[in-house]
Amino acid sequence: MNVINIRGSARAVPNKVKYSSEIDCELGKEEGFVAKKTGIETRYFNTDGTAAELAATAIRQALINAEMAYADLDVIIAASGTPQQIIPCNASLIAEQFLAEKHNIPCFDVNATCLSFISAFEVAAAFLETGKFKNILVVSAESGDGALNKGHYESYALIGNAAAAYILSNDSDRGQRFEVIDTKMCTYAEFSHAAEIRAGGSALYLAEKTNKEDYYFDMNGIALMKAMLKNMPDYMDDFLAKNNIKMQDVNHFVPHQASGPGINILAKALKIPKARIVNIIRDYGNTIAAAIPFAFDYLLEQESVASGDYVMLIGTGAGVSIGTILLRKV
Amino acid sequence: MNVINIRGSARAVPNKVKYSSEIDCELGKEEGFVAKKTGIETRYFNTDGTAAELAATAIRQALINAEMAYADLDVIIAASGTPQQIIPCNASLIAEQFLAEKHNIPCFDVNATCLSFISAFEVAAAFLETGKFKNILVVSAESGDGALNKGHYESYALIGNAAAAYILSNDSDRGQRFEVIDTKMCTYAEFSHAAEIRAGGSALYLAEKTNKEDYYFDMNGIALMKAMLKNMPDYMDDFLAKNNIKMQDVNHFVPHQASGPGINILAKALKIPKARIVNIIRDYGNTIAAAIPFAFDYLLEQESVASGDYVMLIGTGAGVSIGTILLRKV
Repeated sequence: MNVINIRGSARAVPNKVKYSSEIDCELGKEEGFVAKKTGIETRYFNTDGTAAELAATAIRQALINAEMAYADLDVIIAASGTPQQIIPCNASLIAEQFLAEKHNIPCFDVNATCLSFISAFEVAAAFLETGKFKNILVVSAESGDGALNKGHYESYALIGNAAAAYILSNDSDRGQRFEVIDTKMCTYAEFSHAAEIRAGGSALYLAEKTNKEDYYFDMNGIALMKAMLKNMPDYMDDFLAKNNIKMQDVNHFVPHQASGPGINILAKALKIPKARIVNIIRDYGNTIAAAIPFAFDYLLEQESVASGDYVMLIGTGAGVSIGTILLRKV
Repeated sequence: MNVINIRGSARAVPNKVKYSSEIDCELGKEEGFVAKKTGIETRYFNTDGTAAELAATAIRQALINAEMAYADLDVIIAASGTPQQIIPCNASLIAEQFLAEKHNIPCFDVNATCLSFISAFEVAAAFLETGKFKNILVVSAESGDGALNKGHYESYALIGNAAAAYILSNDSDRGQRFEVIDTKMCTYAEFSHAAEIRAGGSALYLAEKTNKEDYYFDMNGIALMKAMLKNMPDYMDDFLAKNNIKMQDVNHFVPHQASGPGINILAKALKIPKARIVNIIRDYGNTIAAAIPFAFDYLLEQESVASGDYVMLIGTGAGVSIGTILLRKV
């Protein structure tokens, strides 16, 4: 079985905090409305910086935590749900933050919207197993507030900016080692328009006649919930049976931090005790693809994962996809 | 050494052909100007269809060629250089074309702009080697004409739409088998703004003050050439030395179809005899990430690759990256 070493990880948020009470005010709602509806009290925004700059902050700290240098990295996989520019890929723009290091490595993006880290981790695990790369940087960074529609408080109040960086290695001399029990993703494309930004890509690029709403993030919360409740039980039953494990055997759950109610519904659907769930939605909001690796880093920092413990990363993302990583601490 | 089986592949272009003579006319140039400057006579455009629909056409033909059904696929990796929508990923929108098949599989994108197929192939090869997936669909589809700036004939006249689909498998019973000798990519991020679309992502999303030019593809041909000429010699020397092979041992070259002059300069820089180069730029233009897999499918269809032949896929892409796949026909 494949064992990978998290040599170092770190997370970052930008400086500007935005309180739910401010959003209450903007939306003309009574104080406490947004916090109650979303479960979120604060989220952070980039006012000047880019997603790549936020990524670089997380990467520098992850390198310190790993006691490694940028020159030790073999590849950058950027695993964000939003592009910083349409061209080039996010990973190149992140590498641009490290030009002073004079270390040119391959850069590419993996994108499965909110589950990008799940897919990128799966890719990294395969590269480490085959020996293609030894030290892989996987980084998710989001600065997606420009696409938020003030008219839709459900999404407008949810999203925050954040970054999380991981240095994954097949060396065993330092860091936290995990057996990769299994990874799984499944996409239910009948719901591919339940959460979307319709414009900005080739389908509606600069279309003059396009409704401005098409450029905003648009989600149908009820359809997303339906997609999850319809598919999650079979998805998870198959996954658990394949790996001969029960839900109650899993010690730590790191769910996508979709929303307060979203995490609660997921927990209920999967019968996960709340005490086993990493839930930091209140303090950071939904940080798109950064949410899962950010919350996982938060868990790792607690040093509460004991040898032999099972950790499950799980989430749903636009597509609609469900994704899971099951790890066991060595 | 890892052997992969190209069970089936296919390519597709949309119906509308656009001749260089039409572009001469639009730009007010004498007849023959564009063809002479770009080496391109025709390119194809989607008038109504989406990139996902074009992808589906190529996928259906690839499945026929592979004598496989959609239900046999284990994962979709969309390897395009442009998004169809900002959310969700291209692979989900491609899967949406096959809802009638009632076959839900993982969908994610790999993006390294024009070299997306190189990175996706590398990912697929790792998954096949570890056994994570058995039958992998890698598909590149581009419909990027909306981002073209008529004011810049250098890029306006280059780009065309196309799709190419590959079913890669670790089964050995049918299809064309290749030993994956090596794959390599390297990104030179100092040139990350030499080819770009600055707006449309989080950096300049719906920025009212943004220059409209920021939404158009902008390339600095001289900087791109400089990036290539500066880095290609060392890149290729290292690659050849590592694999103990000489350039003259390679029987078939499939370069990124960047432009007529671009292919010629690459050939000159690497001392590749013209007869060994797949050059179909005249008939299709630069189809972004679809160009390399499209040209490779064209080569495979000729049945001119003999057992023992070396095939090199090579290109440069925005980032700026250089990427290579070296295969040997089993």
